[in-house]
This record gives sequence, structure tokens and C-alpha cells, in this order.
Amino acid sequence: MKNKLDNLWINEAPKKGSFRSVFKYGDPNGFKHPNERLISELIDKFKLTDKDFSEKETTGNEIVDISVESKLSVQQIEQFEEICGVENISSKEYDRLKFSTGKTTEESMKLRKGVVSLISDLVVHPRNKTEITEIVKYCNQQKIPLYVYGGGSSVNFGFYPEKGGVTLVLSTHLNKVVKFNELNQTVVVEAGMMGPDFENALNNAPGIYGAKHKFTCGHFPQSFEYSTVGGWFITLGSGQQSSYYGDAGDLVLGVEMISPSGNIITKDYPATATGPKVLDIIKGSEGIYGIVVELTWKIYKHMPENRERFSFIFPNWESAVEASREISQGEFGMPAVFRISDPEETHHGLKLYGIEDTIFDKIMSFRGFKPMERCLFLGTSDGDKTFTKNIKSRVSKICKKYGAMNLTSFPLKKWEPGRYRDPYLREDLMDYGIIIDTLETGVNWDNLHQIHKKVRAFVKSRPDTICMTHASHFYEQGTNLYFIFIIKESDVDAYRKFQEGIIDSIQKSGGSLSHHHGVGRMISKWMPEHLGENQMNVLRALKNHFDPNNIMNPGNQLLTEN
Amino acid sequence: MKNKLDNLWINEAPKKGSFRSVFKYGDPNGFKHPNERLISELIDKFKLTDKDFSEKETTGNEIVDISVESKLSVQQIEQFEEICGVENISSKEYDRLKFSTGKTTEESMKLRKGVVSLISDLVVHPRNKTEITEIVKYCNQQKIPLYVYGGGSSVNFGFYPEKGGVTLVLSTHLNKVVKFNELNQTVVVEAGMMGPDFENALNNAPGIYGAKHKFTCGHFPQSFEYSTVGGWFITLGSGQQSSYYGDAGDLVLGVEMISPSGNIITKDYPATATGPKVLDIIKGSEGIYGIVVELTWKIYKHMPENRERFSFIFPNWESAVEASREISQGEFGMPAVFRISDPEETHHGLKLYGIEDTIFDKIMSFRGFKPMERCLFLGTSDGDKTFTKNIKSRVSKICKKYGAMNLTSFPLKKWEPGRYRDPYLREDLMDYGIIIDTLETGVNWDNLHQIHKKVRAFVKSRPDTICMTHASHFYEQGTNLYFIFIIKESDVDAYRKFQEGIIDSIQKSGGSLSHHHGVGRMISKWMPEHLGENQMNVLRALKNHFDPNNIMNPGNQLLTEN
Repeated sequence: MKNKLDNLWINEAPKKGSFRSVFKYGDPNGFKHPNERLISELIDKFKLTDKDFSEKETTGNEIVDISVESKLSVQQIEQFEEICGVENISSKEYDRLKFSTGKTTEESMKLRKGVVSLISDLVVHPRNKTEITEIVKYCNQQKIPLYVYGGGSSVNFGFYPEKGGVTLVLSTHLNKVVKFNELNQTVVVEAGMMGPDFENALNNAPGIYGAKHKFTCGHFPQSFEYSTVGGWFITLGSGQQSSYYGDAGDLVLGVEMISPSGNIITKDYPATATGPKVLDIIKGSEGIYGIVVELTWKIYKHMPENRERFSFIFPNWESAVEASREISQGEFGMPAVFRISDPEETHHGLKLYGIEDTIFDKIMSFRGFKPMERCLFLGTSDGDKTFTKNIKSRVSKICKKYGAMNLTSFPLKKWEPGRYRDPYLREDLMDYGIIIDTLETGVNWDNLHQIHKKVRAFVKSRPDTICMTHASHFYEQGTNLYFIFIIKESDVDAYRKFQEGIIDSIQKSGGSLSHHHGVGRMISKWMPEHLGENQMNVLRALKNHFDPNNIMNPGNQLLTEN
Repeated sequence: MKNKLDNLWINEAPKKGSFRSVFKYGDPNGFKHPNERLISELIDKFKLTDKDFSEKETTGNEIVDISVESKLSVQQIEQFEEICGVENISSKEYDRLKFSTGKTTEESMKLRKGVVSLISDLVVHPRNKTEITEIVKYCNQQKIPLYVYGGGSSVNFGFYPEKGGVTLVLSTHLNKVVKFNELNQTVVVEAGMMGPDFENALNNAPGIYGAKHKFTCGHFPQSFEYSTVGGWFITLGSGQQSSYYGDAGDLVLGVEMISPSGNIITKDYPATATGPKVLDIIKGSEGIYGIVVELTWKIYKHMPENRERFSFIFPNWESAVEASREISQGEFGMPAVFRISDPEETHHGLKLYGIEDTIFDKIMSFRGFKPMERCLFLGTSDGDKTFTKNIKSRVSKICKKYGAMNLTSFPLKKWEPGRYRDPYLREDLMDYGIIIDTLETGVNWDNLHQIHKKVRAFVKSRPDTICMTHASHFYEQGTNLYFIFIIKESDVDAYRKFQEGIIDSIQKSGGSLSHHHGVGRMISKWMPEHLGENQMNVLRALKNHFDPNNIMNPGNQLLTEN
């Protein structure tokens, strides 16, 4: 069976120059194939037969062979060549498509069929912030739309050069730590640095910077390996250890931003009472005000030797939520990884993390933790050794109080190595017309259950749908809900309608429109109702101030019209 | 001697209707007289003789007898009467003066001499937010300047109705908790609620709201007893336990603000990624955008039984700072009260807290902790019992490592009861032409010493000046420096010049213009150089959006012109 399954999946890197090479997530040679257990669930759920697996629906392995004229004049292109050097400019269609594509399901669905919705007019790899200043100035003068490509991992059309123009790729050259400050525990980092490069530099601070300690950036989103530091910040991202380290917005003390209305450099005081903070105004602006080129990032000591790992199984969702609330409000410090799965996610998680059929599984069943009721809790603690041990001990006591059973660190150790790999599942499944996608929301304790129930009810109202939910970013006042759904669907419009229905039910049930994915073009039309017109007008006034000609990521977040 | 000293001070409430009743801090019957040790220091420092104490220079106990015509028309005043009721309006000169006066030294100096710089045209005590909405609308239409009086404790002319108009007093009617949410650990509180009322309500939550726990607001600035919740937030204040609970800006999850451009109600999600947060934009706006009428405030469990208290004496300032940095970056949780005094403040502190001539003093001296070198550290920890005990233990180890000697909880217990009382010293001293005042700044670890040295050098360049400094709000990346200076000066212009010199030296040495006092009119002229014109333009654009007719606290923060 295992061998049989393996034959189902593509195991080679996408063909050079193919559509698949554009939309495939992450490492071209990286794969995480669905395992036997997941596939057998899907076969049951979608009533699949061998026929469904006899042939791939789409692969997108066809070569990109399109001809789209650039809307830029020769003179304009020459200007960019002059600023950045010929070798840092590309007007080739393949490059323009590659650097026009994010990671939404919709984009993948279309490109698999060779449908190109849009491409930018020019790809530019600026070498430094001086060049970016010149580019912004020139584009503003010429009214050329300007889009910034970080790691390209947006799942909500936050990056989507709908008006053509220029795509700036920051990761090519702006990818270094430019200042390391051990005393302040901060680094100044260029916005285009990728997650692993950043973390490696900090982990190796003694060797690289002559530091006394090793450090960590504290921010580990699922997209960690294929996203940039600037992207984390500008979209208000959250990492998998955010309950301890804070969200990306909390981890940044200062930025340098280049905008049509001038350059902004905010100071990096840990606190200051000099009026509203322009840094805060830039947080979450998703590139519509300007281009963040450098960030002052808070760093923490890297002490993996102090990390504690723990996991529990709860009799039901209500008890898992109550225990999580008591932990979050317990005032003994927060776990780093802190994650509870609802019954349906637990059901799949126990399979994925290899708990099924182990001794744990038997004891769980013997002790009455029932499938599709029981809920998995995963946690770690970071920090000083006395602190991490105390968290483990306090968490254990609270979990026991709510009827949970200790599953030791075993599930955690199964979860950790694959934590950045789940996005790789997507292409395998979509090869057979199956979609795995996510939407998420920020919630308070007093509306968590209502939102969970209502959104799940909507998702489940579509026949044959898997809907797994977890909460994984905790605060004293609430948490997030992260919905993962798997459906069989090959029609883009039908899929979009389903997705809009979910966003709608998040909105109507009282959740935030996004906890950490940001707004993008996928969410923006719900924004006026969500925030109210008066708040939208504040954001519009800021947009108008920073970017009066609407050249910066036009169309994103605010539904601005050119 | 003690009796002799006591005769020096005014021991009765200010005369009814007097200038002193306008400018005296806090409770009319509240006093904290300088003790013998402080006075003997001052006598030495300022070379005072009995003659200097033979007569008070000024007391301001004269009755306010001024006649200033209101610039509002009868019709306009009638409109306010109609909105709020005749009983909530006053056009009496005394009331207009009282509710036009903050707590700067300059205002006190002038009023002592009967010099009235300005008074507002009308005092209005709105009963609810509907009335405030009507008032804002009417004032916007009629272009009547609108100033909000919270507790009146501003020390930087943040509240200063320089253009006359209407002063709204929020504490008269908008002073209640309107929603208590134990599940979320939040309350919705009206902006005019005073500190002690707020804290008492939370401490007594089981009785008042049927809560399971007692709660605390976590915010205890020195002005706690005479400042409002709204004022804490809008000026970006910090409490004496901020290292654990966070600054006022961190403690607020949502606000309702009434502005000329419409009303804003932000949602209270613990986290959301729906673009830049209008809540953040309002933080620190000091009333120039609109009137914050309600706040969603994060509350914490009130567990005084878990509080640990500790104090240490360090051989010098450098070691106290280094230990504090190691604690702040230690990742075992933060102390609540966390305060180090420089040698000169320690010198006075040991006297004030009654350490002088105790067994501690003898041991300190025996062990080589020298006066004017040694530095005092005060700390407490709040939270879960395991957490507070661990902090005490980790702090003790770090302090020992840096050569400190444990002074037990004794100095802490001496400091705590008087923590809100120091402002009362001011009037006693000023009766004899002696000024005690403060300025403060936010610093990073890598510029702390430079700023401390340069600002102290400037203060000390004035002959016969006491300059005490402490750091009392700690973060991983730095702290604040709080300068307390005592000088003999009766001339307002000379004093202002001195004060401006200090602000200038804070700016030039690299400190933030304010860590938690805010901007006001005292600091605003340094803002463009501090933030840069491009950041100022962002703040101006926001001002223009919220308040195009510049009726909201005109003149504050941005140097806006009408």
C-alpha cells in the first residue's frame, strides 16, 4: 500500500520554466506527501475510487509560454536599468509571472490550467535602499505601480500586482543583518532576509559577531523557511511560539520605510511617550504606504537546552479551552508553543503524529478519551531553566485539574520536525482535485465557542468536508482560531464562493477578519463593515498622505481606486 | 528640631476660593512635609539661614478675584446648558481657572503671585457620551476650542486651554466601570474614572460584580490618586509596576473616541491582523484627535498574598545597571516594582526610607558600600506564587553576582506607603522659593550611561543643584531615566530656561523626549527635530483628518496653528 501510494505523487522538482515551478511551495525538491492514513480518510470522505487516482487532474508541469507586452516604455525600463544595473532587471515573461504570484489556492488552481490572470511589467532586484529611494521617487513621478515581493508566501493576495508596473524583489540583495547589538538585544536586519538565514545568523552570533550568547529571532511562522523578515512584520504575522515571544508586530522596535511622501526612520527606544507612534501606523500596512527596507528586531537568548516539551489529551474541546484560558491568565509566564486542537483536528493529528495504535492510544481509550471528542494539547516553554520548568509544572497541574491525561513530550517531538512542511501537501492533493486550505481569526474567550461553532457549521454545510481547527496563539484575553479545510473541488469560482462564505461567517460570528494572515485583496471587501467607515477613513487618510498617487501596492487592503 | 520644622509648613487646606486651592496637588488636606534630613541637606546646599525660613515667599492663599469675560456668546452658552443641563455648566471665573490649570511648576509659580495666564470660557461637566458627541459636533460647527480635563495632573502643559473655549470635565459623571468581563479579564471603563475608584472596584469584584476573583488594574503612576484612566492612556503613562504589567498603552485593548470627523469604536480582540490599528494611532494623541470616552482595560488577578519584596545595595551605578539589564534579559519574568537609584538619589533615599543609622547602614559601610557611590535597588514581584518566588530567587542571584548586598524587604516597606505622596512636598518647598521638579526620558542600554552623564552634567552646571536619578520601568531593550532636581529659584523665566536646557540636553544626548509624561506644550518644540519632519507630517495629516477645524486641544503636541 505504501509503495502504491508513493506512485501517486510527483517526486521530482517541477520542470524548469513550468507553471508548477511558479506556484509550487518552497524548495523545488521539497515534498511532504499525504500519508496512508490521511489518504484513506479522504477516500472515505470523498468516496474516491481507483479511478480518481488513475490520472492526475492537473499538474501545471507545462512550460510557461506566454507573450505579454510590458506597459512600460523603453525609456522607463532604461531608467530602472540605470538605477539598479542591467543584471538586476528582467522583463522576461517567466520572471514577471514568477514574481507576480503568491501562494493562494486560487492562483495555484488557475496556473495549473495555464490561466495567467496578470503579470507585472518588470522585475527589479534593487541592491540597496538608496536605489529603492530612487525607484520610489521615479515611480511616483511616472505613476508606475510598485509591488514588493518578499518571500511570495501571501495566502490572501496581499502581494498581487493587479495593475502591472514594477515588482521589487527584496530578497536578492537586501538580505543581511546590518547591525548586531548584544547590549540592547536588537539587530537591524534588511527586510528581504529569509527566515532561516536570519535565525542561523542569530544562532551563530558568537562566531559571526563575537557575541557572548547565541540568539533567536523568536518568530517561526509555518512559512518560516520561505518568507522574509519584512513580510512577517508588514502583514502582522505570528509565529508558532508567539504566545511567549509575541507576534511580529511586537518584535519590531523600529523601521526604516521609503515612501512617496519621504523616508521614515523611527527610533528604537523600548518605550517613549512622544505622541502616536509612526512605527505602529506602519505595522500591518502591507506595503500600501511605502517600502520597509530595514527593521530593528528584538532578539532573545537561544537556549534550546532549557526547552521543556509537554502534551496532554483532554476529554473534550470545552475542557481544553478552559485549561488554556487558566494557563493564559495564570501569571506564571506563557508557554512558547501553545496549541490545542479541536476534536476533528485531534482525530487527524493523532494519526499524523503517530499516536494512533501506540500504548498512549490504548490508555486514552481505556480511560475514556473518546475519538471525535478528545482534544490534543501541545506545548513547549522557552526561557530561563527555572522559568521553563515552572511553566511545565503549572501547566501540568492545570491540565490535570481539567481532566487531561499527560502524553509526555512524545507527540511534540513528532510534531516539531514537520512543522514547516504541511504546505507541501497542497500540490500533491491538488494534482487530484483536492484542496487543502486555511482561514483564521482572532477571538476573545467569550466569543471563541460561538465563532468555532458557527464557522465550522458553515464549512460543514458543504457536503464531504473535513474541517480541523486549532488555537495556537494565546493571550490573557483570548486566542486565535485556525480553520483547515479539505474539500474536493476543481472549479475556481465555486471555490472562491465557498471561501467567501467562510470569511463571511467569521465576520458574522464576531471573529476578527484575520489574526495573522493579514488583509490582502481576499479580505478587503469585508473591512468597511468590520472596522466601520470612520476607521476606514483614518486608514484612507494615511494612505493618501503617504502615497497620494496610489502607486504603492495599489488595490490592496483598502479597495483604493486609481 | 522636629517641632521647629513643623512650624515651617502649612498644615491646613488652602483657603476656599484661593489660588492655592487651584494649584495645590491632590487632597486639600493631604500633606507630606519635607523631613529634617531633607531640610538639613537643603540648608547646606543652598546655604540657607534662619532668615530664609523666617517668612514664606509666596503661598497663593489669596482669594481668586478676577474678572475675565467669556468669549462665548450667550447663545452659545445656552446651547451647552441645553445639552448638559444648567447644573453642569459653570462660567464662574474661579471654576474656569481651576479647570484650566495643570500641575506644572510654572503654573504654580505664577498662581502663587496671582498671575493668571489664561482661563477657559466655560466649564462643562457632560453626563454621558451622547452629550459629548453633541458637544463635539456643536463646537466643530462653531469652531469653539475644546479641552478635556481628566485629573488635571499634567506636568507638561498637555492640558492648557490656551485658546479659551470649553473645558470638559470628565470625572464628574463619566467615572464608572460600565462592563466587567471576568472571562476575558477586561473591563470597559469610562475615561473620567479616578485611579483609586477604579482599583477599588476591581479589588472588590467578587462583591460588586459577583466575580470569582479579585482584580487589579496594574497601573500605579505617582499621580494614581489624582489622575483618570483616560488620562493614563491618552498620554502613554507608565505605572510604578509597569515592568510587569506594561505601560498604559499596553493595558488598553479598545477605545471609544468621539472626534469631529466621527466616532470611533475599536474592537477588543487580543490580536488582529486587519491593517494598521486605529487604537494604536489614538495612543499618545493627548486629546488632539478627539475625546476618548470609554476604554477596554486589561485586568489582572489581585493577589497581594503572592507579592515578594526585595531590595539590594550595589557598590556603584554601573553594577546596578548591569544587574538590571541581566534581570530584564533573563527570561524568567519581570519584577513589578523594579527601580534603581543613582548614587545621589540613593544618598537621599536611604535617609527618606529610614535606612540611615540602622544596622543595615552599619553593615553597608563596614562592607565598603560608600556614600555617593552605592546604589539602591527596590523590587517586588507579582503573579502566581511559584512565579514571584522564582523571580525573587533569580534576582537575588544576579544581584549577588554584581556585588550587591541584600537589604531584605525593609526599604520596600518604607517606600510603599509614601509612593503617591512625594508631589505634596512641592508646595511646602515652593513656599520658601525652592523648586522640586522632574523630567524624564526613555533610553536603551547602550546609551543609558551617556544620557545619564550628560543630563546630570547639565543640571549640575547650575550651582547648588540637587539631581537625583532613577530608572524604574524596565524592558529587554532598555529602561527610562527619571531626573528629579531641586533648586532655589523664584523667577519663572529663569526656571523655564533651566528646564528647556534639560530637555535640550536629553534630546542632544540621545534620549527619548519623554518616556511617560507625554509631549504637551512643554516638549512640543523639540518634536520636529526628534522625530523628523516626515514623521511630524504623518501626525499632522492625522490631526487634519480627525480635526480639520483644529478645535481639539489646539496648540498641544504638534504646534498647530489655528
